[in-house]
Amino acid sequence: MSERIWTAALVVIGDEILSGRTQDKNVAQIAAWLNVQGIRLAEVRVVADREEAIVEAVNTLRARNDYLFTTGGIGPTHDDITVDAIAAALGVGVEHHPRAVETLTRYYETRGGLTEARLRMARVPAGADLIENRVSGAPGIRIANIFIMAGVPHITAGMLDALTGTLEGGRPVVSKSIGGWVAESEVADTLRQAEKAHEGVAIGSYPFFREGRVGANFVVRSPDEALVDRCLADLTKALEDAGYQITVGGI
Amino acid sequence: MSERIWTAALVVIGDEILSGRTQDKNVAQIAAWLNVQGIRLAEVRVVADREEAIVEAVNTLRARNDYLFTTGGIGPTHDDITVDAIAAALGVGVEHHPRAVETLTRYYETRGGLTEARLRMARVPAGADLIENRVSGAPGIRIANIFIMAGVPHITAGMLDALTGTLEGGRPVVSKSIGGWVAESEVADTLRQAEKAHEGVAIGSYPFFREGRVGANFVVRSPDEALVDRCLADLTKALEDAGYQITVGGI
Repeated sequence: MSERIWTAALVVIGDEILSGRTQDKNVAQIAAWLNVQGIRLAEVRVVADREEAIVEAVNTLRARNDYLFTTGGIGPTHDDITVDAIAAALGVGVEHHPRAVETLTRYYETRGGLTEARLRMARVPAGADLIENRVSGAPGIRIANIFIMAGVPHITAGMLDALTGTLEGGRPVVSKSIGGWVAESEVADTLRQAEKAHEGVAIGSYPFFREGRVGANFVVRSPDEALVDRCLADLTKALEDAGYQITVGGI
Repeated sequence: MSERIWTAALVVIGDEILSGRTQDKNVAQIAAWLNVQGIRLAEVRVVADREEAIVEAVNTLRARNDYLFTTGGIGPTHDDITVDAIAAALGVGVEHHPRAVETLTRYYETRGGLTEARLRMARVPAGADLIENRVSGAPGIRIANIFIMAGVPHITAGMLDALTGTLEGGRPVVSKSIGGWVAESEVADTLRQAEKAHEGVAIGSYPFFREGRVGANFVVRSPDEALVDRCLADLTKALEDAGYQITVGGI
């Protein structure tokens, strides 16, 4: 397949993830959303709330991917340094975005007024556009190929919703699963042969231990759905011929 | 504080995380475990099942951290390429570890025997030691400052358990939380001042939206527990003086 593959990277900014306090949910959420847009999540980095760490990750990843997303660090408090760090990465200044000021003024009209801390949420790297926040007041930010999103997953969900259909991508990857009470080590050759026989698919093997028994799910992926279906049919037949009971969709 | 800070990095290897199919649980688990050992998780990368991606991440992160952990890609199937990639990163060959062969032979004695695919799980970068796997057959691997762990979280948990107390570290970071129905934007100055007044603490602010209301938890972190307690007491008083009801431990 010579078709263009569009890729994105994600930088998760947050001491709370690195300390183990908070279970990240944005990686899975953004990965799934990107796939629907026909964009592949190629790599993720989780970095601390330190400017140098953010700058390094942002500059490396924006250069080698079509899109770069960040989550976290865009609130009103002292530990929210994402905007400054990305401005530094791009070598631009920081300014108040007039439409963000307007939005925040309106949002806080009935919530105690626009304080100096709240006004911080209108700060953007110079030249940036806004991403609509359909959940709370503070917008997301788009500059060049960088999309700056919230850390709170349901706010990021609203921002992704606002971006849906606006990013150029390719064909989404189609993933289909089968599974059974199979020890993956017994079928390793079968999996390898099925992947080889269908050029352009990737087969993932995901073992588990449940109800005292080992099992595995096998996921076949490719942007070409017909190819996925052919590979899946062949793999299912090979496993059934070997005596396993296979469940479509995985178990 | 001039005391030595010990750091670790984590490379999560897995297309299943990047596709959004699987919710990672190893970051939070390893972060929490490291903290008990007095080691700080400094950065995480999630990379695809591609050798170049693994080599790049491993070589960058092992050089600038005391310890490097990896999760994923050590099973018996064709998509398990972690051992080969780490051997390539280190410039060493791959060999069968005699004790791993023994362990696997014993483990599979009553489970269909040691097939060629299963024998793959005894492969290690030349010169490596094993990390005991108390849950299933295949061991983890230690070489230089690199710890190669399973992708399945409960197997990794068993491997961490086997490593507990064996890694040199410093003082664990103590984290204590308070919280309340507070809009973080109203108390941004208070937080900033509390952090400034207690050098050596980091205060994180984690807003949420629940039961139709906004609230926030504030986490004070430092290896110095007395300092955390003083900062927390001052911050609590400042917030209560401002009219908020504050709950110890967070809400």
